[in-house]
Amino acid sequence: MTLLVATASWASDVWAERFRAALPGRRIVIHGEAFDPADIAYVAAWKQPPGALAGLPNLRAVFGLGAGVDYIMEDPDLPGVPVVRVIDPDLTNRMSEYVVLHCLAHLRQFRRYEAQQRAGVWEDDRQQPAARDVRVGLLGLGELGMDAGRKLAVMGFDVAGWSRSAKAAEGIRSFAGEAELPAFLARTDILVVLLPLTPATEGFVDRRLLAGLARDGRLGGPILINAGRGRLQVETDILAALDDGTLKAATLDVFQTEPLPAASRLWTHPQVTVTPHNAAMSDPAAVTAHVARQIARLEAGQTPEGLVDRARGY
Amino acid sequence: MTLLVATASWASDVWAERFRAALPGRRIVIHGEAFDPADIAYVAAWKQPPGALAGLPNLRAVFGLGAGVDYIMEDPDLPGVPVVRVIDPDLTNRMSEYVVLHCLAHLRQFRRYEAQQRAGVWEDDRQQPAARDVRVGLLGLGELGMDAGRKLAVMGFDVAGWSRSAKAAEGIRSFAGEAELPAFLARTDILVVLLPLTPATEGFVDRRLLAGLARDGRLGGPILINAGRGRLQVETDILAALDDGTLKAATLDVFQTEPLPAASRLWTHPQVTVTPHNAAMSDPAAVTAHVARQIARLEAGQTPEGLVDRARGY
Repeated sequence: MTLLVATASWASDVWAERFRAALPGRRIVIHGEAFDPADIAYVAAWKQPPGALAGLPNLRAVFGLGAGVDYIMEDPDLPGVPVVRVIDPDLTNRMSEYVVLHCLAHLRQFRRYEAQQRAGVWEDDRQQPAARDVRVGLLGLGELGMDAGRKLAVMGFDVAGWSRSAKAAEGIRSFAGEAELPAFLARTDILVVLLPLTPATEGFVDRRLLAGLARDGRLGGPILINAGRGRLQVETDILAALDDGTLKAATLDVFQTEPLPAASRLWTHPQVTVTPHNAAMSDPAAVTAHVARQIARLEAGQTPEGLVDRARGY
Repeated sequence: MTLLVATASWASDVWAERFRAALPGRRIVIHGEAFDPADIAYVAAWKQPPGALAGLPNLRAVFGLGAGVDYIMEDPDLPGVPVVRVIDPDLTNRMSEYVVLHCLAHLRQFRRYEAQQRAGVWEDDRQQPAARDVRVGLLGLGELGMDAGRKLAVMGFDVAGWSRSAKAAEGIRSFAGEAELPAFLARTDILVVLLPLTPATEGFVDRRLLAGLARDGRLGGPILINAGRGRLQVETDILAALDDGTLKAATLDVFQTEPLPAASRLWTHPQVTVTPHNAAMSDPAAVTAHVARQIARLEAGQTPEGLVDRARGY
C-alpha cells in the first residue's frame, strides 16, 4: 500500500516528507526513484511527469494536490481508478480573498489612486459607484465560486453565477446551461472565471464570450478576472478585446503557458494585472491530511470525499 | 424655517440644489448670500467657513454632511442646539469596501506582485499567510468599525476592536478603555483607525501607540490603516516608525492637513499608500434624505437619529 509522489513543478521530496508525517508507517516513494511498480497503491500527483501513471498494476486511486484535476484527467496513462481532488476550506478561503480583493481593487480604482500618488495628485472621483452598483458574474459555481459569491454579496456586490446545471445559493442569482449564458453575460460588469478545465471548457473565454458582457455598467467597460485555469482563456482574444475597448481591464492569475512567457504582451499591457498563479495555493498540511483521510475511507470501503466524476471530468 | 447651507470645500450651490429637491417648499439659502439671520432654523454644514454659525437667533439644529462632526463641535460659534450627524448605510458600506480592500491588499501583497509584473518576474510566496493568520484591530467600534469588523471576519481575518466602552459583536473580540489598550495593540497586525476626532482622540495614533503593536505577526511587521480623521495621527511619528521598522507599512486616507501638502514625505515613502480622503464619500442623495427625515422628526417633537452626545463629542 505504498504512496507514490509524482509532481513536476513542486518539490517532490518536500511533499514526500509531508506525506510521511501524515501517513506514519506507510511507505512513500518518489517518481524517478527505484521502486517495485506492483507496490504502488496510490499516487499523489501535481502535473505529474509523462508516464508516471503507467505500469502500476495495483493502483487503487490517484489524488490531485490542487483544486483542479485537469492534468490528471488528460494523462493518457490514467487507468480506470478513482481520481480524488482536494477539498480544502483553506484553499477555498484563499481563492475568495483573491477574488474579493481584485473585485474591490477594480471597484475602488486602486491603480488610478496609485498613479495619482506617484504623480502627487490629490483628486477623488465624485461618481464612484458603490459595490451594489456593480454586477459580478461568477463563471463556475462549484465550491470556489459559491464561497467567493457569498463573500462578494456580503461586501454589497450584485452577484450572479453561471454553471452547467442550476445551483441554489442565497444572495447569488443563478443562471444555468448554454441557453442562459447570454443573459448572464449581458448583466455582468466583472466576470470572475472559476470553471474547471475540461475538453468542454477549454478556450471558453474567447472573443465571442467577452463581446457578450455588459456595455452599460458603472466601471467604464467590463472587467475579466480569471483565477481558474489558463487554458480556459484565449489570450490573443483577451488582448484584442482590451485593445478595441470590448474589455476595460483584466486580472489574470493563470495563463495558457505558465510561467507566462516573457514575450507575452500581457506582462506590459497597462490594463492587465498579472499574478503568478498564486490566487489559492494549496496548504500542504491540509492537502496531506485530506489525502490521508480519503485513503482511510477507501480502505474502509467508503466513497472518498472529492471523488471526480469521470464523465464530467471534474 | 429656512435651511442654510454652509460648506467650505464642497460646492455649496450643488448642495443647495439637492436640498431644494429633498425639502420641497422650504427655503434654502447659501452662506455668503444675503438673508435674514432670524429666518435660519437649520444649518447643513461641511467644514463651514468661520462665523457661519454665529448670530442665528432662531437656530434649531445643525446637520453635519459627513460621518464625523468634529469640524462642527470645534466651531467656537456653535450654540447649544442639537447637532445631528449622518447615518447612511451607503457610507458605511463604502467605508467597509475601503477597509476590506486595503487589509486584503496588504495580506495578499498587492504591491509586491505589481512590482514583479513591472519587472517581468514570475515568483510566488510559499509562506503566504491566510486571512485567519492575520489579526486585524479596529480602533473605534462605532457603526463604521462594527460593519468593517463583521465583513473582515467573513473574509476570515482574526478581528478585535477597541472602544471607550465594551461592545458586543459576533466574531469581533472586544477590548475597552485605557486599561485594555495595551493588550489590544499587542495582538494587532493591522490597525484600522476609525475613531471620531475629539479633544480626547487628537494625536492618539502616535509613536507610543505604534510601538505597542504586535511584533510577532505574519506580515513582517505591523501595518496602519487610517480612514478616520487625519488629526488622529501624528505624521512625523508615523514616518519615524516606518523608517526604523516599528511599522511595516501604512495606508492613509486622511491627513493632518488636507489636501496632503506637496512637501510631505508620505507622498513618496515606498511603504505608504495615499488616497485622497475618499474612503467613504457621502452619497448626496442619502445625506439630504437623512437631513429631511430628521427635520421632520424634530418638528414632530421626536429625537433625531444621529443626535450627537455633546459630552462625548460625537
